[in-house]
Amino acid sequence: MPVFLNTTSPEFETAFQTLLSAKREDSPDVDAVVAQIIADVRARGDAAVIELTAKFDRLELTSDTLAFSAAEIAEAVAKVSDVDRHALELAADRIRSYHEKQMPDDLQWTDEAGATLGWRWSAVSAAGLYVPGGLASYPSSVLMNAIPAKVAGVERLAIAVPTPDGVVNPVVLLAAQLSGVDTIYRIGGAQAIAALAYGTESITPVDKITGPGNAFVAAAKRRVFGKVGIDMIAGPSEILVIADSDNDPNWIALDLLSQAEHDESAQSILITDDAAFGQAVAQAVEKRLKTLQRRAIAGASWRDFGAIITVRDLDEATTLSNRIAPEHLELCVADPVALSAKTIHAGAIFLGQYTPEAIGDYVGGPNHVLPTARSARFSSGLSVMDFLKRTTLSQMTPEALRAIGPAAEQLARSESLEAHGLSVTARLKRLNG
Amino acid sequence: MPVFLNTTSPEFETAFQTLLSAKREDSPDVDAVVAQIIADVRARGDAAVIELTAKFDRLELTSDTLAFSAAEIAEAVAKVSDVDRHALELAADRIRSYHEKQMPDDLQWTDEAGATLGWRWSAVSAAGLYVPGGLASYPSSVLMNAIPAKVAGVERLAIAVPTPDGVVNPVVLLAAQLSGVDTIYRIGGAQAIAALAYGTESITPVDKITGPGNAFVAAAKRRVFGKVGIDMIAGPSEILVIADSDNDPNWIALDLLSQAEHDESAQSILITDDAAFGQAVAQAVEKRLKTLQRRAIAGASWRDFGAIITVRDLDEATTLSNRIAPEHLELCVADPVALSAKTIHAGAIFLGQYTPEAIGDYVGGPNHVLPTARSARFSSGLSVMDFLKRTTLSQMTPEALRAIGPAAEQLARSESLEAHGLSVTARLKRLNG
Repeated sequence: MPVFLNTTSPEFETAFQTLLSAKREDSPDVDAVVAQIIADVRARGDAAVIELTAKFDRLELTSDTLAFSAAEIAEAVAKVSDVDRHALELAADRIRSYHEKQMPDDLQWTDEAGATLGWRWSAVSAAGLYVPGGLASYPSSVLMNAIPAKVAGVERLAIAVPTPDGVVNPVVLLAAQLSGVDTIYRIGGAQAIAALAYGTESITPVDKITGPGNAFVAAAKRRVFGKVGIDMIAGPSEILVIADSDNDPNWIALDLLSQAEHDESAQSILITDDAAFGQAVAQAVEKRLKTLQRRAIAGASWRDFGAIITVRDLDEATTLSNRIAPEHLELCVADPVALSAKTIHAGAIFLGQYTPEAIGDYVGGPNHVLPTARSARFSSGLSVMDFLKRTTLSQMTPEALRAIGPAAEQLARSESLEAHGLSVTARLKRLNG
Repeated sequence: MPVFLNTTSPEFETAFQTLLSAKREDSPDVDAVVAQIIADVRARGDAAVIELTAKFDRLELTSDTLAFSAAEIAEAVAKVSDVDRHALELAADRIRSYHEKQMPDDLQWTDEAGATLGWRWSAVSAAGLYVPGGLASYPSSVLMNAIPAKVAGVERLAIAVPTPDGVVNPVVLLAAQLSGVDTIYRIGGAQAIAALAYGTESITPVDKITGPGNAFVAAAKRRVFGKVGIDMIAGPSEILVIADSDNDPNWIALDLLSQAEHDESAQSILITDDAAFGQAVAQAVEKRLKTLQRRAIAGASWRDFGAIITVRDLDEATTLSNRIAPEHLELCVADPVALSAKTIHAGAIFLGQYTPEAIGDYVGGPNHVLPTARSARFSSGLSVMDFLKRTTLSQMTPEALRAIGPAAEQLARSESLEAHGLSVTARLKRLNG
């Protein structure tokens, strides 16, 4: 059973705090193991990666077969059905269109002092995308990571996808091909992250690594952060649905379950201003859990972390939603635009009852790599910005230096940085002399 | 003596690689100690912070004196000279103007399918800025961290600045006041980062932590990353000057020294197309090192990490510059705009001989918190973007769902996520029925 809360209850605040601070993930402390794997890959390169792949993925590789060959990719991709291909192409097109609009502008101006200032954006030269193997090997995640990188202008794009026992998902390879990926390595875990960050004889290092992964991958990303850029340390997925009683309880139940079926640690929360509607949704969830393919996973998630919260009105719903800072927020209410405008912290908002979150997972256009575990308070979903960096520009004229140089001299003096001050003084002397 | 390289030498590539990979920082492994400090602050709150401050800063505090009182701030600020105040105000105004232009736009549009898509930016609610104590307690860094936060719209802004033995820099407090900081805690080290991230009885937690610090602060930031946002893990500062022979060697020498005087691990590199000019700059540096106040630090940095590279032409200089990906890049050449346009990787570019890097440290306008240690390959200097996050928006009409829903159903099927597909199917059924 999920937890039922009501804001009119005197125990509400305590119960809500418990819900907010629930630790949903058993993150085993793999940091020491990961440190060793990274050191091994840095020291022994290909040999270490090959050994670790044999050990963890039961797959024997050589330096020549770390990456899929063009022929292997073509052969796999040929197996993908036309319906799958067309769906993937539609998704790729829509994701591309959305992300193209994110490209930021360069800017340059000259101010009153005569200083020309501005900035210019440029793309990361090479990016590596991690794609989990096995159960969570999602072609849609390849599109969501690779397309923003290509739109940003990344020149070289590599994927690391483990293929335990040599089993590969052809749709993942097609998604890589559709998004313009250059190289696909069949490696995974911390060894893949280390190889992408530091390079080996056969693997050229990249500058930025994105993509989800297990505890080993997350720990490795945290460790290589600084040597390369990373996107975020992702946790289990979550959804918050705010729904009034003018909804089909079955639709809302399916939306909650579409998050719960991802992972036993996923969290689905419903906030409604109608307690009876909340009960109807709970019943619909239970009914659906009898037949759902992934009922074991979805059931565990719903039982352990699901919640239905009844509020006095929708304003209260928004207040709670901002405290939760959900990854996904569905607004199934009469005026979703108004409620959306009051939302400060959320990774992605889905407005109205015809926008189930699953649309955003695949074909809406916005990215489905979003901040989890309340990190929407301070971070954003993946975007072209993750593959761009900004160089600031300044150019002083002699007049500009005369106007603002003395303040720099003074501040340098106050910070006891003599050479800083002198570098300005020497120039002003010539100009004023 | 710095290292002298020449691209015409057959040993150049090896020597340049050595320069690129030189480990300039002795980062002691303080991770275990930091983990313990963070756990202690989480468990015991104020008591732990107070004990650690007594131990490391020789300063006895109580819960009531963790933060400066308004009276204490007013008293300290009154001591600041008018020249210092005016210089700081000019800097603050210019930094504010520059960062105001960085505010990104929200966007919303409706596409051919009838889907309304877009995004909205919002500010982080609360930010904490770390300001080092002692030698590196720079008022200019307060402005560079706090002003972008305020411009972004951050509601609550706290500073942590350790005051060893109770000694405080009044100009730092004035800088905090000028930039709209709400609370100034006199605490530092990993305990300050832990308190800002997790909160204590007297310290309200923040959502984002920025600012430079020593090895303990850096390790603590890496550890709390995910619980809160952080800006970057900063390393020692560096400058690359590209100068032709039409420059005053003394000016260039001062520019190189203004980086070297920061830190023994700082790095100053000159690239020139005229070997004789390079020698003249080297001589000017040596001469200046005889009298410079911080000659011990600057001398060590220049001797251990300084380099003068002679190139065939300026195109070659740009190629090397892009491989270095410098934090600061000064272009003292006849056509700095042309050379700037070819620069892909750099934190900040200073164009022309009247733009010494020190201008950018204080009053230019752009941020002086910039990516070090070659991380300009994948990251940017501090900006308003560090204090904003983006929420993506999507709203389907029935027609839009009819148009793109089937592709989502198909992809969900291909990923074996039944509830994802059903959440679309249920709606399409009603629409098509």
